[in-house]
Amino acid sequence: MDKISHDTLLKQLNWRYAVKKFDPSRKIAAKDWELLEESLRLAPSSYGLQPWRFVVVQSPDLRKKLTPVSWGQQQVEGSSHFVVFTHLKSLDEAYVERYIKEIATQRGIGVANLKGFHDAIVGDVVKGPRAAIAAQWTARQAYIAMGSLMTVAALLHIDACPMEGLDPVQYDQILNLAKTPYTTVAAVALGYRAADDELQHAKKVRFAKKDVIHYV
Amino acid sequence: MDKISHDTLLKQLNWRYAVKKFDPSRKIAAKDWELLEESLRLAPSSYGLQPWRFVVVQSPDLRKKLTPVSWGQQQVEGSSHFVVFTHLKSLDEAYVERYIKEIATQRGIGVANLKGFHDAIVGDVVKGPRAAIAAQWTARQAYIAMGSLMTVAALLHIDACPMEGLDPVQYDQILNLAKTPYTTVAAVALGYRAADDELQHAKKVRFAKKDVIHYV
Repeated sequence: MDKISHDTLLKQLNWRYAVKKFDPSRKIAAKDWELLEESLRLAPSSYGLQPWRFVVVQSPDLRKKLTPVSWGQQQVEGSSHFVVFTHLKSLDEAYVERYIKEIATQRGIGVANLKGFHDAIVGDVVKGPRAAIAAQWTARQAYIAMGSLMTVAALLHIDACPMEGLDPVQYDQILNLAKTPYTTVAAVALGYRAADDELQHAKKVRFAKKDVIHYV
Repeated sequence: MDKISHDTLLKQLNWRYAVKKFDPSRKIAAKDWELLEESLRLAPSSYGLQPWRFVVVQSPDLRKKLTPVSWGQQQVEGSSHFVVFTHLKSLDEAYVERYIKEIATQRGIGVANLKGFHDAIVGDVVKGPRAAIAAQWTARQAYIAMGSLMTVAALLHIDACPMEGLDPVQYDQILNLAKTPYTTVAAVALGYRAADDELQHAKKVRFAKKDVIHYV
């Protein structure tokens, strides 16, 4: 069994920090990037609905336009890869049906076998209690993917900086999302820390275990 | 460098699924559980604010009470460990000051050196644009920790089931959260899949890469 050691996991969870300055000369290798993308694609979501789209901004011109609407943070242009996390603005039956069809096709079963599952989803997030907060709910799902991405990156010794300090409306405009069902919620810059990014030497600050983990 | 292989990472990301039925006889070892708790404590959050509390429900009586308000899902009682994700209902200056003091103490610097950081946080999430959606924002942060927890669990060959199908109001009541600054948003059951949990044999369904990852 290829179990990963506790020491390695703990070391890498402690190694990561939100990088302020990336080394502009170091790019993430194609093979590593492919795995990071898979970690996004395979991320868990409620019902497995994947109500997200990850926009990888490669164009230097677009990155330049995003900087001023990201509080001027240099990670937008300075990182190797820059991913914008977008999520569905609303959930409709058509989307659920597309998902159900995907399950039926991939598992080689009939759509009729999935009627119960279909109805449960629609009855919850399309017509039920979560319909009114659908956009909030899909945004949260994107954060699961973000958490998974940052953890997998750390295990690959790849640095990241999650960024919420950005203007989603401006992002949507620059990335041409208005006519899509998706809207921006956050971004993650990835690459390798610059040797002179001072924060890498600062102690990671977390509240004591007793303050964040309670037993009942 | 103790880099984890791509194959191992990919295999474990594919291995995980939302377990419906846990093996009641298998418990997570103390050493593994400790690491999972650390993955929660070390999880990234915006500004490092950690606006969360993870409630580990050990009491069989409490788990029994939570089952009916969790759509009757058997994972609540059947899992080895059951963690409720709670987040701050609002953010106030006192909380930010507590955090700033923690940084100053742990890094051995003066609070005055952190004034800029303090003001940036307060100006954003306490008095600024995010204040109005503080509870939504803190809930999202909890999902980062959830994503990290599920990924670390998978790497340890430990199963999990993220659960949003629960009544947060009832959870808050049963867990006595009303008089705390925290409120329930979701839960994660952890343990080991039962041999007869059929879903472990079903193909993991994800949309094609081109549908979820866009390049611009």
